[in-house]
Amino acid sequence: MIRIAIDAMGGDHGPEVVIPGLDKVAERRPDVRFLIFGRHETVMPVLARYPRVEQASEFFHCEIAVRMDDKPSQALRQGRYKSSMWRAIEAVKDGSADVCVSAGNTGALMAMSKFCLRTMVSIERPAIAAIWPTVRGESVVLDVGATIGADADQLIDFAILGSAMARSIFGIERPSVGLLNVGVEEIKGQEEVKEAGRLLREANPKSMDYHGFVEGDDIGKGTVDVVVTEGFAGNIALKTAEGTAKQIGQYLRSAMTRTLMSKIGAIFARDAFRRLKEKMDVRRANGGVFLGLNGIVVKSHGGADDEGFAAAVDLAYDMGRSKLIDAIRRDLETFHGSAGKRDVAGAKDAGSEDL
Amino acid sequence: MIRIAIDAMGGDHGPEVVIPGLDKVAERRPDVRFLIFGRHETVMPVLARYPRVEQASEFFHCEIAVRMDDKPSQALRQGRYKSSMWRAIEAVKDGSADVCVSAGNTGALMAMSKFCLRTMVSIERPAIAAIWPTVRGESVVLDVGATIGADADQLIDFAILGSAMARSIFGIERPSVGLLNVGVEEIKGQEEVKEAGRLLREANPKSMDYHGFVEGDDIGKGTVDVVVTEGFAGNIALKTAEGTAKQIGQYLRSAMTRTLMSKIGAIFARDAFRRLKEKMDVRRANGGVFLGLNGIVVKSHGGADDEGFAAAVDLAYDMGRSKLIDAIRRDLETFHGSAGKRDVAGAKDAGSEDL
Repeated sequence: MIRIAIDAMGGDHGPEVVIPGLDKVAERRPDVRFLIFGRHETVMPVLARYPRVEQASEFFHCEIAVRMDDKPSQALRQGRYKSSMWRAIEAVKDGSADVCVSAGNTGALMAMSKFCLRTMVSIERPAIAAIWPTVRGESVVLDVGATIGADADQLIDFAILGSAMARSIFGIERPSVGLLNVGVEEIKGQEEVKEAGRLLREANPKSMDYHGFVEGDDIGKGTVDVVVTEGFAGNIALKTAEGTAKQIGQYLRSAMTRTLMSKIGAIFARDAFRRLKEKMDVRRANGGVFLGLNGIVVKSHGGADDEGFAAAVDLAYDMGRSKLIDAIRRDLETFHGSAGKRDVAGAKDAGSEDL
Repeated sequence: MIRIAIDAMGGDHGPEVVIPGLDKVAERRPDVRFLIFGRHETVMPVLARYPRVEQASEFFHCEIAVRMDDKPSQALRQGRYKSSMWRAIEAVKDGSADVCVSAGNTGALMAMSKFCLRTMVSIERPAIAAIWPTVRGESVVLDVGATIGADADQLIDFAILGSAMARSIFGIERPSVGLLNVGVEEIKGQEEVKEAGRLLREANPKSMDYHGFVEGDDIGKGTVDVVVTEGFAGNIALKTAEGTAKQIGQYLRSAMTRTLMSKIGAIFARDAFRRLKEKMDVRRANGGVFLGLNGIVVKSHGGADDEGFAAAVDLAYDMGRSKLIDAIRRDLETFHGSAGKRDVAGAKDAGSEDL
């Protein structure tokens, strides 16, 4: 049985989207259990309309709900120990849930996750991993915005975290890993990236197949299973790709509705366009995964609908079932040696640095 | 009359693409003159087939041609003073041409351009500017890969250079300028970007309308006329957008050829798809512009066809006609004060730092 802690108050629509989303997941997965955290008076009326969710879940009343525009510090001050967001994360910490999902605001969710779960031994900073649709399937891209900048060691951590996630959700034993750079030649790029490349090539870790540098256009090609970058460039790449997809969608719509002929063509090609729309649907790839903490937290888009939220919960389910956290621990131990090369206290301190 | 220096030996196809490209430009613009640099025995036979280009040009024989895989240092050593690439750039320096176009390799072209033209007083580093198609038209994005990293002063230089270019090619008196960041709030992002934002807000330069921070998805939306970023993130954003456009093109083709119905639809919608293809055509936006040197150099894609090369020459023509270099000098003087705030010697030294 997979137990998923749900912050029912997160996102632009709260329980009105969260509960119908859970209903879709419960329909597909009979072995799922939800621990739902939220305000009694808001969640209960919705839950009553979804008996399947009601049956598969336990509800916990929380007085406080973190708002979408709360600053991380504000959310921590007001919501620590008692908000639905905090308590959903805490359920992962105390072992009552395998994984947690929230559509709440990213900054607050990351701050609370770091404070509650702490970064793993030998990991300096958590990362946010995104699932990126490619022409070959899907890839994991990280970090897409947890922190800005990363040194070579942190990039290597991201490579270990990302390849464990790729193994967990794609079922690839030794995922290929590329470092995002401005050229594929060894002499080009940021010093940190070059250094990380050198170290990965030398270490040749068992848990991944280090491919070398990749460029921006390799992400969509699916050149590698895991694309590693620091959070500034990663966030810009992700949003630029989303923007380009929207832009082309807009071109296509305006081209198809301009003349009678193109409108007729659009009718014949309706199924083709539906397939295309599904391919381009960001909802299918909804869910930023916080990696590097002592527990997995999945962030759903705040504006996601029930289908999108369900996709994020599905992702959480897959990672819970494959015991991703245990896999990451094993990979880290293998890489760093069982004692952990790094100073543990130092690693813990770094956890709250960018709140 | 606009005089354009052409490196006929650059690109994957050399004069076979360059000369037909020039023919298209000469047809559209009766007041253009070309100074063509290249190997006599390679260029002359092609030139003979294009009398319009022959009439509008002067040819200069150069023994050396820089190869597409030459390292910048190698190209400088072998090709300085005598290669077609060098001599095309030199024509801008000595005033015999208004602007230069080459499809040769970017690293060599930038190294030679810096060595020959030198960076402008008060500019520390040149930038490469790209023209980015948006849903509202086009925007200028810089730096897309001249150098990695930029401090606040360099980002401000890029803002001045980019807005002068936008004024020159879009005819907007006071182009809007955004700094690329991971969030639009003032508290987020790289320190250098935040500092540049603060300085631009305070200075409120006459030559631009400073908008604030923009995110990756704002580029394609056309939120601002000029997007400013350092070269690592800028290059990744550009290539990611190109990759995403190709990816969606591939989805679309496979969706439209899958069933009989979709194939019929595709026939009816043929004109619509042609329009879409034009919109997505990277050739229309071909041409990276080197800014910040004492002369304008336009880099055409190495793989561009004649249409693509012509687009790069058109862009050069527009910038030559609007006397972009003079406009940049005026903007820099207005911003820094007529004496130039920065140490001139220091600025010149920085020019060859990343060769």
